[in-house]
Amino acid sequence: MQGFSLQTGKYSVVKEKEIICGFSKLSRDEKLSYIAGHYEDPERFRKDLESYHHPDPEKQKLFDEFSENTLTNYYMPYGIAPNFLIDGKVYHVPMVIEESSVVAAAAKTAKFWSERGGFHTEIISVEKVGQVHFFWKGNKTKLNTLLPDLVEKLREGTLQITANMRKRGGGILNIDLVDKTDEIADYFQLKATFNTVDSMGANFINSVLEEFAVILRRFFQTSPYFNGPERNVEVVMSILSNYTPECLVRTWVECDMNRLDGIDDELTGEEFAFRFERAVNIAKVDTFRATTHNKGIFNGIDSVVLATGNDFRAVEASSHAYAAKNGKYTSLTDIETGDGKFRYTLTLPLSLGTVGGLTNLHPLVVNSLKLLGNPNAEELMRIVASVGLANNFGALKSLVTKGIQKGHMKMHLMNILNQFKATEAEKKLAREYFKEFKVTVKSVQDFLEMLRDPSFIVENFFPGNHEVFFKR
Amino acid sequence: MQGFSLQTGKYSVVKEKEIICGFSKLSRDEKLSYIAGHYEDPERFRKDLESYHHPDPEKQKLFDEFSENTLTNYYMPYGIAPNFLIDGKVYHVPMVIEESSVVAAAAKTAKFWSERGGFHTEIISVEKVGQVHFFWKGNKTKLNTLLPDLVEKLREGTLQITANMRKRGGGILNIDLVDKTDEIADYFQLKATFNTVDSMGANFINSVLEEFAVILRRFFQTSPYFNGPERNVEVVMSILSNYTPECLVRTWVECDMNRLDGIDDELTGEEFAFRFERAVNIAKVDTFRATTHNKGIFNGIDSVVLATGNDFRAVEASSHAYAAKNGKYTSLTDIETGDGKFRYTLTLPLSLGTVGGLTNLHPLVVNSLKLLGNPNAEELMRIVASVGLANNFGALKSLVTKGIQKGHMKMHLMNILNQFKATEAEKKLAREYFKEFKVTVKSVQDFLEMLRDPSFIVENFFPGNHEVFFKR
Repeated sequence: MQGFSLQTGKYSVVKEKEIICGFSKLSRDEKLSYIAGHYEDPERFRKDLESYHHPDPEKQKLFDEFSENTLTNYYMPYGIAPNFLIDGKVYHVPMVIEESSVVAAAAKTAKFWSERGGFHTEIISVEKVGQVHFFWKGNKTKLNTLLPDLVEKLREGTLQITANMRKRGGGILNIDLVDKTDEIADYFQLKATFNTVDSMGANFINSVLEEFAVILRRFFQTSPYFNGPERNVEVVMSILSNYTPECLVRTWVECDMNRLDGIDDELTGEEFAFRFERAVNIAKVDTFRATTHNKGIFNGIDSVVLATGNDFRAVEASSHAYAAKNGKYTSLTDIETGDGKFRYTLTLPLSLGTVGGLTNLHPLVVNSLKLLGNPNAEELMRIVASVGLANNFGALKSLVTKGIQKGHMKMHLMNILNQFKATEAEKKLAREYFKEFKVTVKSVQDFLEMLRDPSFIVENFFPGNHEVFFKR
Repeated sequence: MQGFSLQTGKYSVVKEKEIICGFSKLSRDEKLSYIAGHYEDPERFRKDLESYHHPDPEKQKLFDEFSENTLTNYYMPYGIAPNFLIDGKVYHVPMVIEESSVVAAAAKTAKFWSERGGFHTEIISVEKVGQVHFFWKGNKTKLNTLLPDLVEKLREGTLQITANMRKRGGGILNIDLVDKTDEIADYFQLKATFNTVDSMGANFINSVLEEFAVILRRFFQTSPYFNGPERNVEVVMSILSNYTPECLVRTWVECDMNRLDGIDDELTGEEFAFRFERAVNIAKVDTFRATTHNKGIFNGIDSVVLATGNDFRAVEASSHAYAAKNGKYTSLTDIETGDGKFRYTLTLPLSLGTVGGLTNLHPLVVNSLKLLGNPNAEELMRIVASVGLANNFGALKSLVTKGIQKGHMKMHLMNILNQFKATEAEKKLAREYFKEFKVTVKSVQDFLEMLRDPSFIVENFFPGNHEVFFKR
């Protein structure tokens, strides 16, 4: 097979045999065998991947069927950040995250604020958005006059699709015609808003929109008020928007400034608040900082989004676009200090579901939702946003006091020790040693080399630590 | 415990017993027991969570230590999108994703383009960014004059920390002083750029920056050219930026327009290209559409980022901020058609690592990297970006032709069947039936109800399908 690149002007030769046909048609075991064939030791690879299967074949089948071409399960740590006091109720929050120190930071911040009134939240709005994008040449005034008729047809024509959602209290909210012809010639949108109650609503919205497209085409073709080329409409696509600036939640923490005393050895509560405020304001004006400031929020948010079977790509896209809504990418938090008070707020769009999708299917998602008291979508928005604020607060607190590396590397110590295949005895000594010394990959490596040197006498270094010594 | 809300003016009463102290100090089993205590059937919950542990306790320990307060492993489907032809080399790409149809769309697009020259890529730049944010009141001219001296001190003072990285060909590239006093009084940055070679580099950059802060303080305190209040500097924080607009990769597909013939039953290649171009241009001008357009890119990107042990929050934050760099959040792809050619391009920042972090620790990450031929960071950037473009192309192709719901719901069919606890025989019939009928949660539910009705005779509905019938 040959591929020609316009840019490089070169032909690239590919070995035909490397392209496989019909891979998706193979059984899981056949797929596993095929992929294993690419490794030096196929049998070992196969066994290794199979060791991640769930012991119950029924359950494993469920996981295999979530996605396509599935070989095995990828393990992500499923942990708990306890003690989130949110609107007067305590939650132990399940988090799924591969990054060390995220759960620890959330838990530490949750505990801290649980002693200061906890998190307070407010659901600002719960609207989702969908669009039918179409091109049409014709008399705009006529179209606007006929709009109420079109909207009625759109609503009536989707009564069957929306029946279940309407029963649950949701459905289509508003249908607008958006004239975008000043940006692209002949380009219009049907822009609809939806209430999808406790479901994320993607399938519902997309089904409605695709039906809208059918009705829209029929409308132009059959309405007696249009003639000639006006009867033609080109629907380019019908699809929900993940941008949901009107599905908005706010969460905040607040206390008297003096309740922050003791948060750091070297700063009073007021001094801490002042430094913290500076850091927040920097993230307001500087995009390089805002990106990382917000990334810290999403460490927390995505962890809970994953644990509750929601779609973190949708959440990320919506909130980051929201962060840029005023023309410059900026931070999602706000701070108020004054009159001896401290208040720190996060406002962001969160489109989440507690029914549908994976929420009723993934057994650990079912457990997660149970642990949270089977919240509805709005309550989950409150929880997720609060964990996001907690992680951001925890990160900023470290940054403006001791710096982030000390704590982060302490958390990462176990990973580095595992990287160098440290024994349990070595880990125990390392934990003790690195209470006083700086953790870096290099320093841990040096420490282990020292321990592993035959001439090294543990007792000289860890006096009294006989137990560890003899276990070594 | 009582919490007072400034906003609502109400006290919220919390049951003291719900807050737990010292949770992180408990062993994994003790944590599991404590959390299990919140469920109706603690023993069942505990057994259920334990069933997700890896059978090898050594390996399980490794997973437990990635993060904190870990109870068990969260399973995400680990699948393969084969046949990615990138710069003349074929990759079978591991993807970790919970959303149905993402792997299928990637695989389908990869196959399609493998017959048309595949993906072509270009690394534009590989710089990472870090900042020391500080406040200083003094003579700016003097500071600028002394800058070369300061920069030398910063470089010299970090020679030890950068030694290993320099050996590998990386290190500190540039150190700038950024005057931000027009935005916030007395606010400056040391803005440094780094080459971190094959590591993502977060720990390296943060360690260097924290040392920069120490050197900066010393510089102001000890330099003979400063006096009085000029000797005081307030370093607010020292931290890498996840925004990496100069760590940039481009990937594109291209072919003669007539090679797109047959991509859809109803459109010629040229007609398809025209519709596709319209969809791409809509995402350029409309933020609601751009968000979802980009979200489709990240379905692919995050799947590979997860499978290779990288940090998807960092990748998301950087690229979405990049999408807003010109003052309006917009799409990350570009299209060129003309002279009978079609070219579709994705350009985005990707800060990835193939050493350090989880890459050497998570056994499935190690497998992923092996399967990709142990790429360096640049090669991984090329692969990840190409999968992102593939997923976006696949989504747009569906959107501008048959619509997204038909394919998506077909992929989701198994999940819906599992939701209603369909037997294998029922699934087999459903697969056949829904080849012709529209998949919705309602239609699948109706279908199963019909099958499960005692008076229903399978043979009337599926003539000749005796085998399925008797197995039922």
